Amino acid sequence: MTGPGKPLGIVAASGDLPLAIARSVQDSGRDVFIVALNGSADAWVEDYPHEWAGPGEAGKVIKALRRAGCADVLLAGKIMRPKFSELKLDAKGMMAIPRIMAAARKGDNAFLDALTGLFAEAGFTVVGVADAAPGLLAPNGRIGAVAPSKENESDIAKAFAIVRALGAFDVGQAAAVCEGLPLAVEAAEGTDAMIARIADLPEHFRGTPAKRRGVLVKAVKPIQNGKTDLPVIGLTTVQNAAAVGLAGIAVEAGRALILNKTELIQAADRLGLFVVGVTP
Amino acid sequence: MTGPGKPLGIVAASGDLPLAIARSVQDSGRDVFIVALNGSADAWVEDYPHEWAGPGEAGKVIKALRRAGCADVLLAGKIMRPKFSELKLDAKGMMAIPRIMAAARKGDNAFLDALTGLFAEAGFTVVGVADAAPGLLAPNGRIGAVAPSKENESDIAKAFAIVRALGAFDVGQAAAVCEGLPLAVEAAEGTDAMIARIADLPEHFRGTPAKRRGVLVKAVKPIQNGKTDLPVIGLTTVQNAAAVGLAGIAVEAGRALILNKTELIQAADRLGLFVVGVTP
Repeated sequence: MTGPGKPLGIVAASGDLPLAIARSVQDSGRDVFIVALNGSADAWVEDYPHEWAGPGEAGKVIKALRRAGCADVLLAGKIMRPKFSELKLDAKGMMAIPRIMAAARKGDNAFLDALTGLFAEAGFTVVGVADAAPGLLAPNGRIGAVAPSKENESDIAKAFAIVRALGAFDVGQAAAVCEGLPLAVEAAEGTDAMIARIADLPEHFRGTPAKRRGVLVKAVKPIQNGKTDLPVIGLTTVQNAAAVGLAGIAVEAGRALILNKTELIQAADRLGLFVVGVTP
Repeated sequence: MTGPGKPLGIVAASGDLPLAIARSVQDSGRDVFIVALNGSADAWVEDYPHEWAGPGEAGKVIKALRRAGCADVLLAGKIMRPKFSELKLDAKGMMAIPRIMAAARKGDNAFLDALTGLFAEAGFTVVGVADAAPGLLAPNGRIGAVAPSKENESDIAKAFAIVRALGAFDVGQAAAVCEGLPLAVEAAEGTDAMIARIADLPEHFRGTPAKRRGVLVKAVKPIQNGKTDLPVIGLTTVQNAAAVGLAGIAVEAGRALILNKTELIQAADRLGLFVVGVTP
């Protein structure tokens, strides 16, 4: 990693992840500088040294990072893709937009690779969460009080295999399996929507909050470089999984992020769900 | 095939498939005898030589087929799995139920293999739709007036690859891809529910009825034996795909069934969707 003595530049889009990273990096003793994307980032950025910029203002983003003395840059959060007609472009944004848009249509990985390329070409080192905020990485083993059963473990193995098989096509990061039966596979709808539809399946396929069955697995896709899009679970993931009767959640140890770990563990314990980091 | 001079026994569950098969077999000059499953089969069976039996009355089903002089048996339609407490079992059903239920929990393929095994053990030859009603098989090439674009063809190839990759895990038969982006992957929810949720995705990911984009592929899973569960498309599939803005539907030539072909083609032409049989 270059420039560890300099502030880490965080290009922040929406969601809880950018804030969790900023906190974790500051706790480790390093300064951060936030470039907050208009229409995506939330108000918390005001608590940190920051500057706002539009998602099409690539030149402004890069200048702000240079002015703040950043050498390392981290991209975090979900970019709310703006309508073309409302997108404000600066000169650099205008040059970059064709390949960014073309990449966006090919899926998340291509989109993130294109963004990463943009910052690398401007001379920054693009760093991943695993390097910058290792405290967010899922540990190995049980996280919380509940442990998976033998049946859960076999479902976890199958769900990991499904996500892996799909990874080559940049489909999704998540799958749910209940006693051998694949309940749901994530594509463009996102993990929360995927979990929610489990409630629509016939009851003999799945568990209920009273009798929990089945597991959720979120895993990195094999083609991901691990720098830009590690799978994330948080309090909402646990609450959603609990609501549809799943028995628990598994992620890959060291290759997934856990947000709000204290609250997540409290909720999982109270609801009777296991959360585990595994080495599949 | 054994017993082609004898009537074909069709064990009919729900949906349009059993009727389409009965019609097609009769049109080819062979008699049929229907065992209609209580709670699953529809009233059309009354138009054919038939007998009703409960899904747990395996002995009754087998006796009826023997009495009708059938040597070949075909299983068709979706069995509405009854509540345990309401399931009427005869002696043979009681012997078979543990392994059928255990198989059902492992997914559709295991369930169908267990049912097939039951009839094979009783001395019947279990035949597939491809043998008994070849007129229902998807032909090679364009079906209807609209042809897929180059972009559609590339999405078709990707969607086939996704279904194949998942086939080893008995997940689902369908996937939708739009300009490289996997929109949806079928698991336990079924194809119609999978198609419907495409409407919930952001509009830049997908097409609209005014500007159609993206394709639906239904394909046989690699582990399927091709006898019991060929993918099926019908009028509803075309209507559902049209409603969510897809450009068309592709199935594997000779390895998928097309129901109500005349009406399906009329609807596809009117709505501007392509339907193709491909050899991927």
